[in-house]
Amino acid sequence: MTFRHSVVALALSAASIAAPSYAKEAVDLLINDATILTMNADKSVYQHGSLAIKGNKIVAVGDRSLAERYQAAQSLDVDGDIVMPGLINTHTHVSMTVFRSLADDVPDRLHRYIFPLEAKLVSRDMVRIGANLGNVEMVKGGVTTYADMYYFEDEVAKTVDKIGMRAVLGESVIQFPVADAKNADEGIAYAEKFIQQYRHHPRITPAFAPHAPYTNTTETLQKVAKLSEQYNVPVLTHLAESHREQEKIAERSGGKSPVQYMHDIGALNKHLVGAHMILVDDKDIELVKQSDMGVAHNMSANIKSAKGVSPALKMYDQGVRIGLGTDGPMSGNGLSIIDEFNQVAKVHKLVNHDRAAMPPVKVIDMATMGAARALHMEDKIGSLEVGKLADVIVIDTKAPNMVPMYNPYSALVYSANAGNVRHTIVDGKILMQDRQMLTVDEDAIRDEAIQFTDVVRKTVIDSGEEVL
Amino acid sequence: MTFRHSVVALALSAASIAAPSYAKEAVDLLINDATILTMNADKSVYQHGSLAIKGNKIVAVGDRSLAERYQAAQSLDVDGDIVMPGLINTHTHVSMTVFRSLADDVPDRLHRYIFPLEAKLVSRDMVRIGANLGNVEMVKGGVTTYADMYYFEDEVAKTVDKIGMRAVLGESVIQFPVADAKNADEGIAYAEKFIQQYRHHPRITPAFAPHAPYTNTTETLQKVAKLSEQYNVPVLTHLAESHREQEKIAERSGGKSPVQYMHDIGALNKHLVGAHMILVDDKDIELVKQSDMGVAHNMSANIKSAKGVSPALKMYDQGVRIGLGTDGPMSGNGLSIIDEFNQVAKVHKLVNHDRAAMPPVKVIDMATMGAARALHMEDKIGSLEVGKLADVIVIDTKAPNMVPMYNPYSALVYSANAGNVRHTIVDGKILMQDRQMLTVDEDAIRDEAIQFTDVVRKTVIDSGEEVL
Repeated sequence: MTFRHSVVALALSAASIAAPSYAKEAVDLLINDATILTMNADKSVYQHGSLAIKGNKIVAVGDRSLAERYQAAQSLDVDGDIVMPGLINTHTHVSMTVFRSLADDVPDRLHRYIFPLEAKLVSRDMVRIGANLGNVEMVKGGVTTYADMYYFEDEVAKTVDKIGMRAVLGESVIQFPVADAKNADEGIAYAEKFIQQYRHHPRITPAFAPHAPYTNTTETLQKVAKLSEQYNVPVLTHLAESHREQEKIAERSGGKSPVQYMHDIGALNKHLVGAHMILVDDKDIELVKQSDMGVAHNMSANIKSAKGVSPALKMYDQGVRIGLGTDGPMSGNGLSIIDEFNQVAKVHKLVNHDRAAMPPVKVIDMATMGAARALHMEDKIGSLEVGKLADVIVIDTKAPNMVPMYNPYSALVYSANAGNVRHTIVDGKILMQDRQMLTVDEDAIRDEAIQFTDVVRKTVIDSGEEVL
Repeated sequence: MTFRHSVVALALSAASIAAPSYAKEAVDLLINDATILTMNADKSVYQHGSLAIKGNKIVAVGDRSLAERYQAAQSLDVDGDIVMPGLINTHTHVSMTVFRSLADDVPDRLHRYIFPLEAKLVSRDMVRIGANLGNVEMVKGGVTTYADMYYFEDEVAKTVDKIGMRAVLGESVIQFPVADAKNADEGIAYAEKFIQQYRHHPRITPAFAPHAPYTNTTETLQKVAKLSEQYNVPVLTHLAESHREQEKIAERSGGKSPVQYMHDIGALNKHLVGAHMILVDDKDIELVKQSDMGVAHNMSANIKSAKGVSPALKMYDQGVRIGLGTDGPMSGNGLSIIDEFNQVAKVHKLVNHDRAAMPPVKVIDMATMGAARALHMEDKIGSLEVGKLADVIVIDTKAPNMVPMYNPYSALVYSANAGNVRHTIVDGKILMQDRQMLTVDEDAIRDEAIQFTDVVRKTVIDSGEEVL
């Protein structure tokens, strides 16, 4: 069992003894000797820098001189490691971890395989078990905030609350019967109840999640849009993802693109976060910009399904609110944004025929401030700046794959993997330290997930589906 | 300092005490309770299987009943983890780790940046320091054999010998002055001396490495081809990689493709291993097949440089000897083949517009048997079969990103990262156990590499180049 309590040293530095203590401001956590990537507007980088946290907020970030100004209850000396904003996963279905590695390459998989599988297996237990596992994977991979779309989101919320992460949790709305609703109206009712329950939670933002335009009626989409305005909550959806969707929406709307259709029915607005956005043209991008909506770019999942490459770089360059996402664990399949970096950079270079396209700093920006902007949370998270919430990760720069580090953005994008994350801090609290989970029992969570795979295997085998 | 001696338990199991010991065959290492991917011709998989190693060879592989037939000096109970052939990196320049993350996105980088940088900095020390670091990264990433092209390969050989890996080491031959030769003839002479020194080494195969067709004369390429036949050693080269090469060779040969040209001058044969092979058409592929040459497919590096996607899947499907490579650490930038899997699978799906293209089992085959075939070493390595050399890796299947595991090939390709490798065994010897290096001092190697970065920084800054 790897569950451990924090072993951070209580810091009473020589300096703090030498100077009278009233001269120093008391803080809760001080990180020293860091290569700090602030991801602020100037992309300021501090070598041997310090970061001070009080409560759940950043109270100082800067060069080494800061260390002398604070007296910290806890301190982490990170010996030159990268300190950066926690990564934000703008699109996933976390509970689907329990289905990961099933039928990865089945054509038309969503309709032929996943929806039938979910009809048999989605339950409160499944949602909880899968979310617990996915949360641990994300914290160990440096993700501090994620946006989720699934069923029984109140169960996901409990797991997020427990582990201490931050999340936008979207309760699904879809026109056919699912595990927690018989139809879209029941889904909306479930979502409203969930929203009322969690709207004042400090780390959880409840949301509506209409599955996609083509799996809901126009009336449902308009009803959700209206309610999102009323509750002032996000609307997470899959948008401009597939040719099937494109055809269905064109049929319904007299030839409109999904983005144009959503605009015309009044559903393209600042509450909306559209995942994928592969099939968008310049006119669509113009509507996206005007609407002030957010976009979740899921490179790894999109190319795995051979759906294509979103013009995400073009959208980013035009100022669209856009961040990175992993999509669900049957799609990506990993949940760590770090493992997206490499592919995001390289595939955009490939399709643009330009090795200078999508430089590492843009990738990191899309994983931090871009993603915060996509979720309309840029005032609170996404960069290391005074007054922001203390969502911070530390990346090991002494692992052999990370040496040397002439350019920290390059090292992160082209060399790092999820296993290089050393510490993960959310809301000022250390959730993982030196790869050890501090707020949940990783082994118990994994064992429960492995037990659940027996249920999945039995169900899949009973149905005559091939597991492998 | 993480250098430790093996802490494997001496195994005298209950069974071995109960039964008379003469009934059991003595072996050196027994791995039990493994999910064994043999990668043999039938792609046999054993659940809860066992693998027995005696000396440097595999003496048994199969189901759990095997465990009772052997008495082992050492045993590893891996609790369901994946046991598979060691990964084979068919193309790299290992010593270039010391330049990693420099100038990643500079257009025309090889000629404008890398060659001038190397002219200033390549030395015996640099080659040794870089190789030591890259070797550790590879062992920690599950690579047991690699093919290298660089200078002072006798220095690389010493590092390979020390750490205990297996390698094909190609001494560069190039027409302009480099650190260890003034011209191609001197390069050939250096290579011949190196070949004579190492041709009988049990784990090192010395080779010629003419840099590319366009950076050598026809006469040099023919001379190398003749000598490779005489010494019976491989010839590693970059082939059909860039438009520059394509144009230069077309000029020289009256419009021939690089592959056609190499064929026509008598240099396309079973000794040759061509890296990249991006710009090849069906006629070229036919020549490749007929020649029995090997191919190194470096997806990650090729898309990072926006050079394009090799028709590697087509070559594989047509029976070409083809394996995966990372290219050098300024190109890929990682050296672990595991971190290639994801991109190899997904980008081939993308360019083939087919999510069923390049299924995980083909990716794993290209990383093991395919790569062994590319290096003409398939009789010795690449699969877990009785009589083969014991190059074996163990992958942690309990890390949260690896749970659940309905399909081990999918889990490896879509979910694993280099940090999931638990143990690495080469030639029957454990080089890494539970992430700890056993044959070299990882911390000392890293510290020496970090010290060398000061030399690099100084040189780059003196030259007025921008480091970041």
